[in-house]
Amino acid sequence: MTRREYDAQVQSTLEYFEKAQIVLTDEEKANVEVADFGMGKVKELGLQLVVYINTDRVCAKEMVLLPGQTCPEHKHVPTNGQAGKEETFRCRYGEVYLYVEGEKNTDAISAKLIESEFSVFHEIILKPGEQYTIMPETLHWFQAGPDGAVISEFSTRSTDETDVFTDKRLIRETKIEV
Amino acid sequence: MTRREYDAQVQSTLEYFEKAQIVLTDEEKANVEVADFGMGKVKELGLQLVVYINTDRVCAKEMVLLPGQTCPEHKHVPTNGQAGKEETFRCRYGEVYLYVEGEKNTDAISAKLIESEFSVFHEIILKPGEQYTIMPETLHWFQAGPDGAVISEFSTRSTDETDVFTDKRLIRETKIEV
Repeated sequence: MTRREYDAQVQSTLEYFEKAQIVLTDEEKANVEVADFGMGKVKELGLQLVVYINTDRVCAKEMVLLPGQTCPEHKHVPTNGQAGKEETFRCRYGEVYLYVEGEKNTDAISAKLIESEFSVFHEIILKPGEQYTIMPETLHWFQAGPDGAVISEFSTRSTDETDVFTDKRLIRETKIEV
Repeated sequence: MTRREYDAQVQSTLEYFEKAQIVLTDEEKANVEVADFGMGKVKELGLQLVVYINTDRVCAKEMVLLPGQTCPEHKHVPTNGQAGKEETFRCRYGEVYLYVEGEKNTDAISAKLIESEFSVFHEIILKPGEQYTIMPETLHWFQAGPDGAVISEFSTRSTDETDVFTDKRLIRETKIEV
């Protein structure tokens, strides 16, 4: 991703936080993280986030997905002797299509698939005020509806570096071209 | 507290969530909890809250304090073999005066004290977007500013029933007169 693309994603993210009336400090605004998972098509496959707190025991963050943007399929495995990350997603704005392990319960997925690998298709739709808890080692991916989405995440410690992606080409660390 | 007082507190709480643009489900609105700590003067000494999630590992809730309302001094001790609760308060609306162990750093506290017992006077003022993490077994109490306050709490498992209050008359469970 170029610096220019990165900065444009950050700017869009801040607009979503304003729409959702989520107040951030200047320091948090300056530290919005953009993940493109190394695929170079962040508007389709990507995620923006602000981490509020991440201690040994607790993590909280706000995530933004732009309209139709997808966070790729992954799971959280045991790390440093602790069980995998348990996370609750709470939709604050827009609409989220969340997919987890379980029976496929919709025929409307093929249009949502982009160039990556997906294997779980049990759909949960989250609207503002609705939430869902994803237990450790559960494969999941999620996509914003047409108006984008702002999602609060409440979880155990976040160790993004040990996330296991279904698509082995993906990497969690974002590289910015200079 | 009478049922009528309880319902009035719930109604005020919902108005604060609206001001802070925090969306709740109908079920959550019906389950707003009001704590008066058994002292029968909830407008001065009390707390309103909605628990989003409380598993063995993670808890998240939204709290509301009405203008000048105080949550009494307490600490979280080890419970069921786990370390005491670690919690991060994030101010979403209004202003919070939080007091923790440490050097007394203000002379403006006496007007804030109500009929209860307080022993820690290190003040941290939280405005929207600002947050503070309270480690286990740390005494703390907090009070809303003149416009009230909405506070998100991100923490380990909540076990309110083992909270240790400085004022031994206080009880965590609210009793509603019939």
